[in-house]
Amino acid sequence: MRTVLLVGVGAGDPEHVTVQAIKALNRADVVFVAEKRAETDELVRLRHEILERYVEGSPRTVALPDPARDRSSPAYREAVEEWRAKRAEVWEKAIAGELRDDGCGAFLVWGDPAIYDSTLAVIDQVLARGNLEFAHEVIPGISSPQALAARQRIAFNRVGGAVQITTGRRLSAGWPEGADDVVVMLDSDCAFTRFAGDEVDIYWGAYLGTEDEILRSGRVGEVAEEIRKLRSEARERKGWVMDTYLLRRSPRS
Amino acid sequence: MRTVLLVGVGAGDPEHVTVQAIKALNRADVVFVAEKRAETDELVRLRHEILERYVEGSPRTVALPDPARDRSSPAYREAVEEWRAKRAEVWEKAIAGELRDDGCGAFLVWGDPAIYDSTLAVIDQVLARGNLEFAHEVIPGISSPQALAARQRIAFNRVGGAVQITTGRRLSAGWPEGADDVVVMLDSDCAFTRFAGDEVDIYWGAYLGTEDEILRSGRVGEVAEEIRKLRSEARERKGWVMDTYLLRRSPRS
Repeated sequence: MRTVLLVGVGAGDPEHVTVQAIKALNRADVVFVAEKRAETDELVRLRHEILERYVEGSPRTVALPDPARDRSSPAYREAVEEWRAKRAEVWEKAIAGELRDDGCGAFLVWGDPAIYDSTLAVIDQVLARGNLEFAHEVIPGISSPQALAARQRIAFNRVGGAVQITTGRRLSAGWPEGADDVVVMLDSDCAFTRFAGDEVDIYWGAYLGTEDEILRSGRVGEVAEEIRKLRSEARERKGWVMDTYLLRRSPRS
Repeated sequence: MRTVLLVGVGAGDPEHVTVQAIKALNRADVVFVAEKRAETDELVRLRHEILERYVEGSPRTVALPDPARDRSSPAYREAVEEWRAKRAEVWEKAIAGELRDDGCGAFLVWGDPAIYDSTLAVIDQVLARGNLEFAHEVIPGISSPQALAARQRIAFNRVGGAVQITTGRRLSAGWPEGADDVVVMLDSDCAFTRFAGDEVDIYWGAYLGTEDEILRSGRVGEVAEEIRKLRSEARERKGWVMDTYLLRRSPRS
């Protein structure tokens, strides 16, 4: 039976990698690299650095091309699901073709496979297609919000409080119900700016754990413009940006 | 200047430890062990295993006794804050007394320092007291919900969806607003049972990453009683239990 490992490798700092992930990567005969269109040489280099640093010998890497995704579609969920289905086809072929019958392949996942990552969902789809049987295991990794909290030296929650993890897309519709502490991911539109007039603090970080890391924090109204500028300049300069932030407001009783 | 490191060491499996955490522990002259009243020999042994496995030589460990905490108080937040203030006094003395002027001390944190852990809040209080200056750094770690998701091979979120992280205490008041996927921690009363009549799935795990790990999942109505029994038997047998779970309901539109 083949085995597929989904290995969380942290938010960008190669030292985020866990002992468990190192062992998993060393079990793999093949490392599958699911390419992303937005991906740059820098991310490719970071991934190679992780493999070189922690894997004995050099596992064979197999690139999986990214199927087109319709980002213009207003039906966000449907567009994502269609894209996942296309990925599942590509991955099925690769797992069948590149792994021996008892072979072991690993997918490297930035951050944690459980938090806004689609690798597991695509693997579930490959299995659901029913053409191919394999065992699969998931190895957790340090996510970018955790790297942010560590570098900002903050906790997500306050005493006994709840925390919402959400997306920029959702936040742009308003403050989420049910939490005064909100972790935001996947926000390319700086949705936090809408709270510039409120008593809300932001703890923001980009390129966390890398040498280009940028951190800012303060009352949203005071730092939102600076963050927006830093973010757009960095994106211009580097060709990509990855960031996340925590918003914290006074508890409503 | 003294340095204090808050080091997340994962949810129980020593292999959750990151390369960054291993390096941090090896920088420390002293490892401070904040004792907990509920703590058992087993957790002490697990902690020692981490130090023995990953730290060269043996750093000096200093136990910090746990001040009494009023668990009967109905004013939960105030009781926690009073307990933190007492801890801050004890820790201040220990940092001043046990570390050289340029020494480095590490606090081991189960899980991640950012998620329902008070180590950072107590360190902030020590600094706020103003009697002692020191640098401090936080090292993120794999939290128990991440270990749960990996072992259950699930993601916290669904496509573009939000996730709420909350406590058993809060959940016992009802389903949180604003999310259909809810990660619950610190639940000693099996608050999930109140959703036994609803279309809600539970993914539960106890002693995650250890040899005693227990996993169950299914419709709450079908597995709640089994989980409650497993949990109470395990607690009886081992003297302690640590568990966490994800609740997932059909999205309300």
